[in-house]
Order: sequence, then structure tokens, then C-alpha cells
Amino acid sequence: PGYGGFPENDPMWGYFRAVAGQDGEIDAEELQRCLTQCGFSGSYAPFSLETCRVMIAMLDRDFTGKMGFSEFKDLFTALNGWKQNFMMFDQDRSGTVEPHEMAQAITSMGYRVSPQALNGIIKRYSKGGRIFFDDYVACCVKLRTLTDNFRRRDVMQQGTVNFQYDDFIQCTMTI
Amino acid sequence: PGYGGFPENDPMWGYFRAVAGQDGEIDAEELQRCLTQCGFSGSYAPFSLETCRVMIAMLDRDFTGKMGFSEFKDLFTALNGWKQNFMMFDQDRSGTVEPHEMAQAITSMGYRVSPQALNGIIKRYSKGGRIFFDDYVACCVKLRTLTDNFRRRDVMQQGTVNFQYDDFIQCTMTI
Ligand SMILES: [Ca+2]
Ligand SMILES: [Ca+2]
Ligand SMILES: [Ca+2]
Repeated sequence: PGYGGFPENDPMWGYFRAVAGQDGEIDAEELQRCLTQCGFSGSYAPFSLETCRVMIAMLDRDFTGKMGFSEFKDLFTALNGWKQNFMMFDQDRSGTVEPHEMAQAITSMGYRVSPQALNGIIKRYSKGGRIFFDDYVACCVKLRTLTDNFRRRDVMQQGTVNFQYDDFIQCTMTI
Repeated sequence: PGYGGFPENDPMWGYFRAVAGQDGEIDAEELQRCLTQCGFSGSYAPFSLETCRVMIAMLDRDFTGKMGFSEFKDLFTALNGWKQNFMMFDQDRSGTVEPHEMAQAITSMGYRVSPQALNGIIKRYSKGGRIFFDDYVACCVKLRTLTDNFRRRDVMQQGTVNFQYDDFIQCTMTI
């Protein structure tokens, strides 16, 4: 909560409270249950626990493994964007997008990565040569988080960052 | 194959051939099937596809998403080490190790990471405050790969590396 405004007046507040339970924060299991129950994935397979953990990690700057209300709202905004994007490419609703469409999707989100990096990313998130919704979201979450982590350190916007080992491991192992 | 010696004379060669099938290489689905069928996880739950992908990515330097014979053997060596380590900590065979044991395990493997990084890593790979075998292995694989990637660039062994954005994304998104 915070930033002025009372969360109690927010239509999502009651929903958040119900999902978060006693501790007032949402962990990966609670998030998975909530996204499954609200039918977020539609005709696509529900999110795996792994992808839910990656989502929590994206927003969890204090390493509690849980998510508060404002993060919960941010997550839904991001998820809706990625879902629209995925559905745009998956016009036959087969539940998968093809590698070349995935490359277009990543580029259209504004990431500037080499063909070699794109190729590696797509291989990593494919099953049988296609990308499913769950993996697509996991990929988007990680790419956003890693890029944010990089940019935050690239204060001069030079496109390079000097990482110490411990910082590198923290940036990459917790996502 | 390679490095002299004929793989045909290796007792694991026939097994590798059977798992790899027609294309002579092992992808994540084949690896998962093989580790499940050979009962590698013992009384622990079988490996998730996600962890199998991470294992392939660890050894897959050419981004084909597949593994040849020598990588297959390297993987078994590494897996056996991690399994022994995990079982040492999980003496009651409950299938989980506790956070403080996980911290000991990581430190005993020779990784020098701050308490803050350790805490973040452990949170990321826990379920309900404990670490299961599948997640333990995924964590070990990633930590090894990321550390290897870092060291390979830290030619002067200064403990710092200057990453360009594209290289950073390749190093971290493909694992
Ligand atoms: Ca909760
Ligand atoms: Ca499709
Ligand atoms: Ca194969």
C-alpha cells in the first residue's frame, strides 16, 4: 500500500485480501491458485508454480518471497499486456506461438538483442519448437527483470555495467 | 563424442543412444523421461521439465537445446555429486532440506556469496520454507553455470566483470 490514496477504496483490495490471507501478502502458491481460479489463462494451460515464482521475484525487492497490494496490481497490469500480445500472435488459439513470432514479440516490446541472444532465449523457452503461454510469460518476466536490473546499474546509459560477483549472482539467481 | 577414445566402448554409450533416439542428441523431454525411468531421484519426486531444461542449458554452449554424449556423462557426474550432498543434509529422507542447511551446502561447494545473496537464493528455491530435491538441483545448476559464465569473463580474476547488455542477457536468459 502507500503513495497516498486508501487501498480500502480500491475495487481490487477485497480480492487481494482474500488471496493474501492472514499474513497480508501473496506467495507463489497463493498466486498460482488465484490466477487459476480467476481463469486468467483462459483457454491456455494454467501457470506453473515456477512461472508464479518468477512473477513474485520480479516484484519482490526485499526478498521476502511475497507480494503486497501495489505489486499485485502492477503484476496484473503487466500480465494483461503480455496476454494481449501473446493472443495477437496466437491467432488460431492453439496455445503456442512460433519461434519467429516470439522474436517479433520480444523486439516489439522494445528489447534490443542480437539474433544470437534471441535464438538462445527462444530455444530456452520452447517445447517441441513452439512457445506456450506459460513459458512466454516466464520469459517476458525474466527479460523485464534482468533488463531493469541492468539499467538501474547502467547510470550513464552506456550499455555496459561493471558487475561484482556477488551483485551479479544476486541479480540473476533470485529471478 | 571426441577427446580420443571410442564412445562405442563406453558402457554408457548404448544407454545414451537409446535415450537420444534418431537425432543422436538429448533434449529436455528425453532427459526428463530418462531420469525418471532410471529412478535417479530415488524416493524423491522426479525432476520437473523446468529443471531438465536448466540442466541442458548448463551444458549447451551452441544453443541447440540438446546434449551430446560427453555432456551427458558430465551431467551424470555433476548430478551424482549434488544428490549425495542433498542426501547428506536430508538425513531423515523427508525430501527437503532446511534453509540453514541450504546455506551450508552452497558454501561447502565453494561459492563465496554474501548472506544477503544467500538469503535471496534460498527464498527463490523454497516451497513453504523448505527446499525440495528438484529445486535444489535447479539451484545448483544455475549457480554453477552463472559462476562459470562470470569467471570465463573475469580473466584477471578481479571479481568484477564489465558486461555489455547483450552479453548479460545471453548469459542469464538462456539458463
Ligand atoms: Ca499469504
Ligand atoms: Ca498458434
Ligand atoms: Ca534426441
